[in-house]
Amino acid sequence: MPGMLQQLAQPQPAFNSIAIVGVGLIGGSIAAAVKARGLAATVVGVGRRTSRLEEAIRARLVDAASIDLAAAGRESDLIVFCTPVDRIVAGVRELAVHCRPGTVITDAGSVKGVICRDLCAGLPEGVEFVGAHPLAGSEKAGFEFADAQLFQGRTCVLTPGASTSAAALARVRAFWSGLGATLIEMAPEAHDRALAETSHLPHLLAATLAALLSDENRPLTATGFRDTTRIASGDPDLWTAILLENADELLRSLDAHQDVLHRFREAISTRDARQLKALLQGAKAKRDALSGSKP
Amino acid sequence: MPGMLQQLAQPQPAFNSIAIVGVGLIGGSIAAAVKARGLAATVVGVGRRTSRLEEAIRARLVDAASIDLAAAGRESDLIVFCTPVDRIVAGVRELAVHCRPGTVITDAGSVKGVICRDLCAGLPEGVEFVGAHPLAGSEKAGFEFADAQLFQGRTCVLTPGASTSAAALARVRAFWSGLGATLIEMAPEAHDRALAETSHLPHLLAATLAALLSDENRPLTATGFRDTTRIASGDPDLWTAILLENADELLRSLDAHQDVLHRFREAISTRDARQLKALLQGAKAKRDALSGSKP
Repeated sequence: MPGMLQQLAQPQPAFNSIAIVGVGLIGGSIAAAVKARGLAATVVGVGRRTSRLEEAIRARLVDAASIDLAAAGRESDLIVFCTPVDRIVAGVRELAVHCRPGTVITDAGSVKGVICRDLCAGLPEGVEFVGAHPLAGSEKAGFEFADAQLFQGRTCVLTPGASTSAAALARVRAFWSGLGATLIEMAPEAHDRALAETSHLPHLLAATLAALLSDENRPLTATGFRDTTRIASGDPDLWTAILLENADELLRSLDAHQDVLHRFREAISTRDARQLKALLQGAKAKRDALSGSKP
Repeated sequence: MPGMLQQLAQPQPAFNSIAIVGVGLIGGSIAAAVKARGLAATVVGVGRRTSRLEEAIRARLVDAASIDLAAAGRESDLIVFCTPVDRIVAGVRELAVHCRPGTVITDAGSVKGVICRDLCAGLPEGVEFVGAHPLAGSEKAGFEFADAQLFQGRTCVLTPGASTSAAALARVRAFWSGLGATLIEMAPEAHDRALAETSHLPHLLAATLAALLSDENRPLTATGFRDTTRIASGDPDLWTAILLENADELLRSLDAHQDVLHRFREAISTRDARQLKALLQGAKAKRDALSGSKP
């Protein structure tokens, strides 16, 4: 019976309608991945500019689009916030009052403490927010750079709270693992402490290195400088919000970094080759361990 | 006449015999490029370990090999030092006494001041050293990673001295541009000042970022951390020598960097979004200008 075979080949999507709020590089990549993997019957893009949303529809990234958060809330069973981190809390609050009970909201923000503390309570009965941070991205901006494989094999941190229901967590896990991500659960504060070290501080140092470059030295840069500063090309608005929402942990990481740097500096200024080599060996061992662990 | 046609198709190589002292990633890539471009009739590899040199011959990177600097000096018309920077001066002095008048010696060291100051005088009559630094490399080590295209389109800085003859400079220019590099001439001290900013400081900061990474945070790194710290996998011996030979300029660059970092830190600790965004925009503009200027 061909109909039955077809049904086996095309199982019911895990979600009926997914709304993606903020259709940029990350939101666009989520939309592309959801469609490529058949995770939802319908993908709705929500944004602020009709012209950009129309382009996203024409690019077949989303099935429908809206500038109306309320409508997206009413009609979706999963909503993913991909706006800059400083607009997530207000956006979720505005949308949540329109959601049906059972609706789950997640996000892709690079900072979790402020967002999860604010949204762990006060949402309408039966509507839950479960924070997420997929460790994937690019210095590029806009859904033109969307990549359906962006989350494949990457880590996605989930930060459920004490009051998160098992049902909501299961839905959010199904969503992010459905995009190909490997899931880790952490407390929001632990996430922010770790990401200060692995993402926000590297961003800050890449930006300062780029800022320091004089025009006349531009021809004297090679691949080392380019790689070390690549992320300094990231969107200044997005990164201002990220660095400020995680300012306390970032400043703590920066202090720890200055301590390490001081040891290197001492070895250099005293011309202590043995000590400098030991420090460089320690750094190399840490970096080499990383190369082996992931593609 | 077939013989004549053959001669037209295979013009006389620019060099008769080139010796490459230190057949690692850079030396091996130079050997591969010389052979690919027919720059020399013979390429001789000079090193300290016979077993490695035999492997280089088997890999057809070099035509012949020797552990004897004197023999290489006697038989070559161009010698390229690709040893760690702290072994270049002694190696050149040891070899130069065996060279015929007219022999030119160049190098590929990442630091130029110490080397060029030391070698600008005192070599045998008719034997000249002209410093060079091709801005190409890799965090990988060993001639197994040699790449005949490594210098194609890359900048190579030449640092001739006041006493460098036009003939020697022309030979060294012909060599490096023959490998595909774009040449820039600078004073050795200006080179070191610039490279402190574009290479040695980035290396130091990449190493400190890698050193800071705790084991439990390893799964929370993504492409940003990987790119920013890639060069921390470089050889600790090579980089100890480079950072110490350019210690004064590196420490000056580090001071300048700390001033820039202080401005970022102030904006973050006072939660000054406007100022932080302006600083990130400045950094992005510098980095974006770089992306446009080279592949």
